[in-house]
Amino acid sequence: MLFYDCTTAPSPRRVRIFLAEKGVVVPTVQVDLRKGGQFDPAFRALNPEVTVPVLELDDGQRLTDIVGICRYFEETVPLPCLFGGSPVEKALVESWLRWADREGFYATMDAFRNSTPGLKNRALPGPRDYPQIAELAERSKLRIGDFFSRLDERLSHGVYLAGANFSIADITAIVAIDFAGWMKIVPRADHAHLHRWLAAVRARPSSGA
Amino acid sequence: MLFYDCTTAPSPRRVRIFLAEKGVVVPTVQVDLRKGGQFDPAFRALNPEVTVPVLELDDGQRLTDIVGICRYFEETVPLPCLFGGSPVEKALVESWLRWADREGFYATMDAFRNSTPGLKNRALPGPRDYPQIAELAERSKLRIGDFFSRLDERLSHGVYLAGANFSIADITAIVAIDFAGWMKIVPRADHAHLHRWLAAVRARPSSGA
Repeated sequence: MLFYDCTTAPSPRRVRIFLAEKGVVVPTVQVDLRKGGQFDPAFRALNPEVTVPVLELDDGQRLTDIVGICRYFEETVPLPCLFGGSPVEKALVESWLRWADREGFYATMDAFRNSTPGLKNRALPGPRDYPQIAELAERSKLRIGDFFSRLDERLSHGVYLAGANFSIADITAIVAIDFAGWMKIVPRADHAHLHRWLAAVRARPSSGA
Repeated sequence: MLFYDCTTAPSPRRVRIFLAEKGVVVPTVQVDLRKGGQFDPAFRALNPEVTVPVLELDDGQRLTDIVGICRYFEETVPLPCLFGGSPVEKALVESWLRWADREGFYATMDAFRNSTPGLKNRALPGPRDYPQIAELAERSKLRIGDFFSRLDERLSHGVYLAGANFSIADITAIVAIDFAGWMKIVPRADHAHLHRWLAAVRARPSSGA
């Protein structure tokens, strides 16, 4: 098994935190996204989507999706459970994971990729170039504010995003928040529930991954 | 248990097809999105995100996420299995579901919501109004073309999107394709693998849901 990672990038960090929570160590290769390592012919042959992370299994099959890789480890290393236990818990983790991914992680990615000078024609990940849309960057920055407010509201009802237990939804949200921080977009000081949760999540050893 | 549905809308159709495949019938209430039924105070109290579908459980808890609702039924009515069986199958279903959702369903939603005259300030679902971005509509239409091409390529390797078995990834893709059809965006005639798969999926009784 081999994990293709890039320590500076938010997407593979979601998997790294997940693996740290599981206590799983996987042999890892670094792909330097800042130097365009994903476009090297050897990596492109491995993953035509030119995205990181990639998990190569022992039979040569490759998983190229963040949550797909996490799901594989949830099934093979069940504890601690990070996708929920009971049917309702699993449904809630799924729901909040998807919410944090769409409203947090992807909104942040849209804001960042559509406004960063070095990413002029790389407004979307993947093999095809797309020009930036300035209006989309601005709209996405507003959405990040909505994400923080909604997160604060949600965390007024429970310890973690999907309820009583830490889950992959929390991992998605913390990585989105730190990613937004690259643009100096940070939660308001009066988001007390969000800051209580942030402190708890940052105190976990996995958050350094 | 009560399912809040809108028969004309793509999002709840994903759940309806899933339920039809499982052979599950749930008492259903219609919310007329074309008449703004999601903004009625009674529905807004039920789901502040003002989105459909919603599944209300017998204990009053509500699930408001498409895939969260499907996950609940996968856990409570395991057969036929629509999220994969083995760890690798589950990882592949997760990966292709997320791909079809992001590159197919959400690209189509962005194209539609950012270009439809009746949705001027409703460029995103949810409680907050966002103005349309014409450039985003155009870019999203190009992405739908990429989605069709990649789908055709993927289906040259297997019967269904995630491999040998029909799954929630196929449901997501077919609903995205039919949604794109609203804008007369259809797969090219020479996408032979895609058309072979389309015929097989449309032949399933669930596709009428």
